[in-house]
Amino acid sequence: MSTTSSESYSALESSLRAAGVDLDVVEARLRAQRIETPSWGYANSGTRFGVFAQEGVPRNPFEKLDDAAEVHCHTGVCPAVAVHIPWDRVDDYGELAAYARSRALAIGAVNPNLFQEKDYKLGSVCHPDARVRRMATDHLLECVAVARELGSDALSLWFADGTNYPGQDSLHERRERMTACLSEAYAAMDPEMEMLVEYKLYEPAFYATDLADWGSALLVCQHLGERAKVLVDLGHHAHGVNIEQLVALLIGEGRLGGFHFNNRKYGDDDLIVGSVNPFELFLIYVELAGAEQLTGAAPTRYAIDQSHNVEPKIEAMLLSVMNLQEAYAKALLVDRDTLAEAQLAGDVLEGHRVLLDAYATDVRPLCAKVREDLGASAAPIEAFRASGYRERVIGERQGVGVSWA
Amino acid sequence: MSTTSSESYSALESSLRAAGVDLDVVEARLRAQRIETPSWGYANSGTRFGVFAQEGVPRNPFEKLDDAAEVHCHTGVCPAVAVHIPWDRVDDYGELAAYARSRALAIGAVNPNLFQEKDYKLGSVCHPDARVRRMATDHLLECVAVARELGSDALSLWFADGTNYPGQDSLHERRERMTACLSEAYAAMDPEMEMLVEYKLYEPAFYATDLADWGSALLVCQHLGERAKVLVDLGHHAHGVNIEQLVALLIGEGRLGGFHFNNRKYGDDDLIVGSVNPFELFLIYVELAGAEQLTGAAPTRYAIDQSHNVEPKIEAMLLSVMNLQEAYAKALLVDRDTLAEAQLAGDVLEGHRVLLDAYATDVRPLCAKVREDLGASAAPIEAFRASGYRERVIGERQGVGVSWA
Amino acid sequence: MSTTSSESYSALESSLRAAGVDLDVVEARLRAQRIETPSWGYANSGTRFGVFAQEGVPRNPFEKLDDAAEVHCHTGVCPAVAVHIPWDRVDDYGELAAYARSRALAIGAVNPNLFQEKDYKLGSVCHPDARVRRMATDHLLECVAVARELGSDALSLWFADGTNYPGQDSLHERRERMTACLSEAYAAMDPEMEMLVEYKLYEPAFYATDLADWGSALLVCQHLGERAKVLVDLGHHAHGVNIEQLVALLIGEGRLGGFHFNNRKYGDDDLIVGSVNPFELFLIYVELAGAEQLTGAAPTRYAIDQSHNVEPKIEAMLLSVMNLQEAYAKALLVDRDTLAEAQLAGDVLEGHRVLLDAYATDVRPLCAKVREDLGASAAPIEAFRASGYRERVIGERQGVGVSWA
Amino acid sequence: MSTTSSESYSALESSLRAAGVDLDVVEARLRAQRIETPSWGYANSGTRFGVFAQEGVPRNPFEKLDDAAEVHCHTGVCPAVAVHIPWDRVDDYGELAAYARSRALAIGAVNPNLFQEKDYKLGSVCHPDARVRRMATDHLLECVAVARELGSDALSLWFADGTNYPGQDSLHERRERMTACLSEAYAAMDPEMEMLVEYKLYEPAFYATDLADWGSALLVCQHLGERAKVLVDLGHHAHGVNIEQLVALLIGEGRLGGFHFNNRKYGDDDLIVGSVNPFELFLIYVELAGAEQLTGAAPTRYAIDQSHNVEPKIEAMLLSVMNLQEAYAKALLVDRDTLAEAQLAGDVLEGHRVLLDAYATDVRPLCAKVREDLGASAAPIEAFRASGYRERVIGERQGVGVSWA
Repeated sequence: MSTTSSESYSALESSLRAAGVDLDVVEARLRAQRIETPSWGYANSGTRFGVFAQEGVPRNPFEKLDDAAEVHCHTGVCPAVAVHIPWDRVDDYGELAAYARSRALAIGAVNPNLFQEKDYKLGSVCHPDARVRRMATDHLLECVAVARELGSDALSLWFADGTNYPGQDSLHERRERMTACLSEAYAAMDPEMEMLVEYKLYEPAFYATDLADWGSALLVCQHLGERAKVLVDLGHHAHGVNIEQLVALLIGEGRLGGFHFNNRKYGDDDLIVGSVNPFELFLIYVELAGAEQLTGAAPTRYAIDQSHNVEPKIEAMLLSVMNLQEAYAKALLVDRDTLAEAQLAGDVLEGHRVLLDAYATDVRPLCAKVREDLGASAAPIEAFRASGYRERVIGERQGVGVSWA
Repeated sequence: MSTTSSESYSALESSLRAAGVDLDVVEARLRAQRIETPSWGYANSGTRFGVFAQEGVPRNPFEKLDDAAEVHCHTGVCPAVAVHIPWDRVDDYGELAAYARSRALAIGAVNPNLFQEKDYKLGSVCHPDARVRRMATDHLLECVAVARELGSDALSLWFADGTNYPGQDSLHERRERMTACLSEAYAAMDPEMEMLVEYKLYEPAFYATDLADWGSALLVCQHLGERAKVLVDLGHHAHGVNIEQLVALLIGEGRLGGFHFNNRKYGDDDLIVGSVNPFELFLIYVELAGAEQLTGAAPTRYAIDQSHNVEPKIEAMLLSVMNLQEAYAKALLVDRDTLAEAQLAGDVLEGHRVLLDAYATDVRPLCAKVREDLGASAAPIEAFRASGYRERVIGERQGVGVSWA
Repeated sequence: MSTTSSESYSALESSLRAAGVDLDVVEARLRAQRIETPSWGYANSGTRFGVFAQEGVPRNPFEKLDDAAEVHCHTGVCPAVAVHIPWDRVDDYGELAAYARSRALAIGAVNPNLFQEKDYKLGSVCHPDARVRRMATDHLLECVAVARELGSDALSLWFADGTNYPGQDSLHERRERMTACLSEAYAAMDPEMEMLVEYKLYEPAFYATDLADWGSALLVCQHLGERAKVLVDLGHHAHGVNIEQLVALLIGEGRLGGFHFNNRKYGDDDLIVGSVNPFELFLIYVELAGAEQLTGAAPTRYAIDQSHNVEPKIEAMLLSVMNLQEAYAKALLVDRDTLAEAQLAGDVLEGHRVLLDAYATDVRPLCAKVREDLGASAAPIEAFRASGYRERVIGERQGVGVSWA
Repeated sequence: MSTTSSESYSALESSLRAAGVDLDVVEARLRAQRIETPSWGYANSGTRFGVFAQEGVPRNPFEKLDDAAEVHCHTGVCPAVAVHIPWDRVDDYGELAAYARSRALAIGAVNPNLFQEKDYKLGSVCHPDARVRRMATDHLLECVAVARELGSDALSLWFADGTNYPGQDSLHERRERMTACLSEAYAAMDPEMEMLVEYKLYEPAFYATDLADWGSALLVCQHLGERAKVLVDLGHHAHGVNIEQLVALLIGEGRLGGFHFNNRKYGDDDLIVGSVNPFELFLIYVELAGAEQLTGAAPTRYAIDQSHNVEPKIEAMLLSVMNLQEAYAKALLVDRDTLAEAQLAGDVLEGHRVLLDAYATDVRPLCAKVREDLGASAAPIEAFRASGYRERVIGERQGVGVSWA
């Protein structure tokens, strides 16, 4: 079904304006949306059962930036790229930053790696051995320095730390060790830098993960200081956890640091955001857009973190960004006044229907128009395919592409 | 946003026809959709923490039919009502059936109650005491007779049977007892009657439910005969279970007997269908519509089974039916040829996008038009509110309304 | 198998002393264990599908105390009873307190009821209507006064507050309303009173529960003050949540207020504590006993909160207390020095095996001996049966017993 | 605590005999217990985040047999080793079988690998491309031949087949493709061979796994024939699924083919069996021992399938086997007559307490004695450590050990 024509937009525009939507404001916000894509999302990835290498995968950090630039080119809202050290380690970070700028990109959050080295078998900042904790802390300090060189203002921390068996280690002491290490890294950050602290229910630890939920991450942040905030990855929760509610809660506490967008049906599946429950994604954006309305500013940072194991990576990234644009667009269409009225009146169904009304709207023509206004593509995936980029890099990038892990 | 005007329909119609959709077929199928509503869904309901009685709730089975008729009147696709014995026990079932016909309704599935009597504390057809099993079987036989009198062709069985503690009873023997009781009831059914066997992960049993999943229900059906089929309630699965997949599987085995539609985020929450994950509902309908396309007939029975604890019941039922109409409409828009092509080619994203394309479509104008074609309401909830029905029955139905349990 | 004889104890004693266990300390601690039983645990209870009334169930708060006294008599460690207002409302609380004392009991935590009144359909302290919030707050203030009269030093709060549908209410505003109401109640408490704040993933709310996890409860406590602490109910978590870890975390923050012991396999099943995963119960006690060892005092309050739907209530309570005694006993047998050594050395299996070693020990003779030392029963259930208490109250308590809800 | 002395055994023996246990029968059964260990369990393994190589890990199939022989030597009940093709591919299978015999071992189930080749990115026997299905089927046929050469009588099949996104492939057609391929392999098996069909909720597929639960595996087996049976891996279920119940059910259908023992708290964690919920393991054995009692024969095959990512592999395997011995021993101590009586009488607590009584028993001295009777070690882990085996192979096995995947 053709959904991107200007005709479709006109019909939608009339309908929305007739319903009282201030479409200029909505479109301005959609143009201002910003989503960071992850350098490692362009690399090969897989499961413990194997990695299926794809053709044309980047061979180095510069080629990852090329792919990210392609995503920005077609979507218009992805001008920053998160990097991962050591996967994106280069001799000259100034050169990498300059290359990014040359592709109209900035470097987003810097992500340390505290799980790959063999010393980290029993943990990094929580490890029982002070030597390993020192090594982990030094890596954090290195990443602060790298961030400074790359012009990044965020350190994004995920810890694989945890235990596999009851009795393996002291739950309490591991926590104290973590706080001590992070305090040192926090103190080393420049005043404009933020520390984003991610949590995850399980994997690779299977008994107790040291930061297993938002509450335990928030407590660490409270101990560190105001620039430590919680990062929410959509795939890191137990089944049933209401993510939009904890997002609202973290916003209320001023501690929502950012998102790692993806989707999951089972564990931390790292699928395309919106592919399992797009209504949930919409509800998260309803909270975000509501907070934004109050303060006039985006309440947090937005990034994608996915593993494209069986689908082509750049196309999957384009679809992910489009899903985020559509979720945001729908959230912006929510009739907030009617919603507030219904809620105050205790009219359960009416409040619910206000959300349904926005969600049911086919916003694809609106998002296409906004992308065009940004100089990007009305139909990103089709445009990307037509560009010949994929064929070109498959030709150019002979040799083994980099792997996610 | 106004979405029901003929103008909206025209725009959608053009777009769909331009995309090659055979809209006449789609609309014919939407007009042929049939959804049974449950008599108990109009009664008061709640949780173990209490029941919040609503005004104007029916006081007897006849008034429940009145409410069901109202839902059919505004939606056009709900001409049958499932009944529950003893909640809908009357002296003269012929009178009840006649009353239903007078309201343009038929009686749908007959649902025995095998959990309320104090004798059922430790089970009904699985009870260790043969006396209780006899009592349960006799109730099943009574329900077969009631179905005959009411002109119903389906016995819909849900068992609360199960145990709360390991060791409480023999898992194996409980199963054998169930098969024996059901065989007797199955033998008593008329040749055109079907036995629908429901399963449920847990509640009210908290250690082992005797029919805990589709597999255990299917095995019982296999032992009984071809007219015993599995009934799928959307809220009766463990977290993560892929419902559309087991629907496909039961269709493949010729054993999908019917649905109890509702939605859940946690346990068996019995919320409005489509209110938690409307995409999942769409995916279920993609399987159903696909099977229908192959055989030309609906592959199963469709019924709603919900508890409207905090929202007005008739409006909630109307919204539920509309959600089912929209899910079915979107499933009918799936471009099956392109889908099959993408799947055969192993084009992961393309197959996925074919579904997304149908799902993103705003089908509300289409469903409104179909409802109007059926002589029902373009905007059911608004029409119901304007009808004054609710105010009238609140005035008429003084005294205590019936309760769900 | 006879496990309570003095002969068994002697064999165990030799073996433990030979292994270096300071059995005198272990037994002293076991004698000092204190578990509150809930008045409502002696009343009829059930599920939304029905309540199966039992014979001999108490008809009033005084008879509940009689049953609780019986549990204390046979176990020796249950000298306090939690009460629930209005279920335990009496004209003269002084009389109730005196009656408790006459049965060698004290009144434990006072539990307000903020979910039964029809006004609470959409919430209590989070309700959109200020009138309902006032009513809820007044009930909290009443309970503070009741606690004062009963000599109780704890207000134990569980809220059914939540929403069933996205859009039903503002997640953020509900939270602010709750904090405002609780602040008023907190201010009214005497300086020696504690406010215990319970959380629960879901039920009766099925979309968003206002206090859904320990983190959200802890944040409320932080806003209230130091005497507000988190209460952990073992059945109130999502699947997979590591409870012993959050217990360790709350202890570390000085905010573990208490327990509601029970067990669950699915939702909030309220089964006998230890009946689903006794190893998990042991691991929780390992954390508690470890904290106790550091400070010399019990780190929190302990209470049972169960629903005995199909089993006799007093016997089930006796078994529950015995399960708690055994879990604690095993936790006290953990060789803490060897454990700490293994953990520091990163010896994964050795640390795990230290716990297994304690867990595998058959501590029943030890617990029986401790109970006898306390003047209670070596074999509580057998002793209770032999006492004729049950038959006596069945005879005396004609008429309908009280219900849980 | 010393638990292996003959003194401990004597005390236990007296107590058990006094309770009416026929200890000779119990010990005979314990001596007859058989558990297969997996060749890949001795190899390096990890998660998608990395593999932490251990010292002394086998470099080839022969060295894996050496490690397995060591486990059998100390436990006495592990005389067979499951192999995995191609991980255990050798030029001369006769030589491998002879080597096994020389170590007093037999070859257990043969496990094909249908997930590692790059052709399997979208599936193996369910792949949309007939060429890939042919390749997969040929590998199955190869494994039948290998089993014949190795003297194995079981093909143990696990499929990673599944899809990551709705629309990626036809759920129904994938199922038909699988049945077709398996039929060919089934037909090729010798009459004494069994085909074990494993299921798994998810991973590596994240939307729909082609064999996601026991029901879908059983249906395939029904289509294949009587020698196709379901294999239960303890880590492959949704949260809350009652495993002992489906074991009872599969036994009842004559379709329980075998076990892959391990334990999990979250996903398919592959931890040491019994390390998360040993009571559940006991309950599974209660069903198995009950079935055994009826027929006099073990109702199924038993194998371990674990990943020892952070703990030493041979010691972990020894502990796993000991956990299985203890679970079985406790199940054998269940007083079946009293249990049956309580169940028939509907005495909920009494039935439960019969199980608790057996479970609470410290059976370690009994298992130690049985191991000694078998010529194995009373204390396997201590004996293994004392043997110097680990140090010896670390010295001998220079170079990189084999990896699990």
